[in-house]
Amino acid sequence: MQNLDEHTITDEAIRRLEGCKDARFKEILTSLTRHLHAFAREVKLTEAEWMQGIEYLTAVGHKCDDKRQEFILLSDTLGLSMLVVALNNRKPAGCTEATVFGPFHTDKASDFKNGDDISGGAPGEPAFISGTVRAADGTPIANAVVDVWQADGDGIYDVQYTDKNGALFARGRLHTDAQGKYAFKSILPEFYSIPTDGPVGEWIRRAGRHPFRPAHLHFMIQAPGYEKLVTHVFRSDDKYLDSDAVFGVRSSLISDWVRKEPGTAPDGSRMDKPVYTLDFDFVLPREAH
Amino acid sequence: MQNLDEHTITDEAIRRLEGCKDARFKEILTSLTRHLHAFAREVKLTEAEWMQGIEYLTAVGHKCDDKRQEFILLSDTLGLSMLVVALNNRKPAGCTEATVFGPFHTDKASDFKNGDDISGGAPGEPAFISGTVRAADGTPIANAVVDVWQADGDGIYDVQYTDKNGALFARGRLHTDAQGKYAFKSILPEFYSIPTDGPVGEWIRRAGRHPFRPAHLHFMIQAPGYEKLVTHVFRSDDKYLDSDAVFGVRSSLISDWVRKEPGTAPDGSRMDKPVYTLDFDFVLPREAH
Repeated sequence: MQNLDEHTITDEAIRRLEGCKDARFKEILTSLTRHLHAFAREVKLTEAEWMQGIEYLTAVGHKCDDKRQEFILLSDTLGLSMLVVALNNRKPAGCTEATVFGPFHTDKASDFKNGDDISGGAPGEPAFISGTVRAADGTPIANAVVDVWQADGDGIYDVQYTDKNGALFARGRLHTDAQGKYAFKSILPEFYSIPTDGPVGEWIRRAGRHPFRPAHLHFMIQAPGYEKLVTHVFRSDDKYLDSDAVFGVRSSLISDWVRKEPGTAPDGSRMDKPVYTLDFDFVLPREAH
Repeated sequence: MQNLDEHTITDEAIRRLEGCKDARFKEILTSLTRHLHAFAREVKLTEAEWMQGIEYLTAVGHKCDDKRQEFILLSDTLGLSMLVVALNNRKPAGCTEATVFGPFHTDKASDFKNGDDISGGAPGEPAFISGTVRAADGTPIANAVVDVWQADGDGIYDVQYTDKNGALFARGRLHTDAQGKYAFKSILPEFYSIPTDGPVGEWIRRAGRHPFRPAHLHFMIQAPGYEKLVTHVFRSDDKYLDSDAVFGVRSSLISDWVRKEPGTAPDGSRMDKPVYTLDFDFVLPREAH
């Protein structure tokens, strides 16, 4: 078809998908084309703005490497990630809610035993975290994989450092015991800024938004026969709970991290500074068949 | 705001722009957020599909370098580029229509004099191209910059070759003479495939679309006091005129490239093989004040 104008080009671009054998791909591309075109028409995107968009996306791509995922960060800050989480994680009543995955997970984390210190010496206030992983009917889930990661006390994830030879810390993989219990020592999470030294920082600043996330610990919990859970546990005393830069806060995931004065720590050791404790249980729905 | 769900997150993401001082940026981001979210809701994008999208955009970004612009190609194949051209180039009657810029222009092209051979030895049928650049009232525009680029007879642009040390050919910058005339020798354009060795080729294949563009010569024409024109001249005998992979064909830009049998060429030289001639005039609107 020739002489396409701003009114006819959308239908023609969609008609070109008529030979697509993959029905789901066709459905996604049809909707994407319609919304992308509607956006450009609605704002009457200029050619200079289009070129800025091309250059912006290119810069986002160039910022991505094996340790940095700027497109996830872009999706997070646009609210798209949390929207997709919400669309796909309508948990049954009583089950732990999900939230955003974020860009800082890595499969390379080490295995730890319950009770281990996973902090790897990361700066921060010491914290003892424990709880149970259960099914909705209360059955403890033994041998569930509990994947944990967090920023250090300076608000920076291990994978963000460029001067530590790729050392991993304040993350690890544990397994629940026969009673479904997990326990580890780490550090108290602190609020932090998402990385603002790249294109995402640029748009956040231009939008007049702050880049902060309330303090949280990431969990990904998996057990055969149960739905995978990707979530956080937040701190109840954080000032950014109502304005998380990535829209991820759910009130059911906010918990008190209890401060204990120096003395005997939960693991029996002597602590000469205060420690924090968190007790948090996770409830997983059974996988649909 | 906490506990955002798929119905409330869009308004909250837009509300976060309330501190944005740049009204146009705010307008664009508001519309972009609304359409991006509507797309994800409409197709009920799964988390695996979202991650495929993240990985796809990352791959597109990684394919971009100083010679390859995969995001422009993606925009072109989605019909977005031509939509933006249509939105911004409603030319007055009698003026030459615009079409897509494409990803193969470079500012590094050499200057040529009228009558020069700009082909640089590129393989292809010899062609003599000439015409006049005029204002809508017929006034010839002297000293207009005529920037020309094209694929070679094998359907490949100079900047796509990786084994030619960055040599440029079949492109150049000319200036119209006092009568508004331009003339150069080059080669007959042939239909070609957009680059399919990257992520854009992947989606085109999966969509069941062909990757071909009808033969064309690119022009970008600029003169003080006139609107810049970015356009093509197509060949009337091309089989892809109705299915251009980037939706760029306008019937007013289709022209006969006249084949002349061996003998005396338009520049007076002896030709021992056939040559093609194209005579094409460009009409530019005056710049709005």
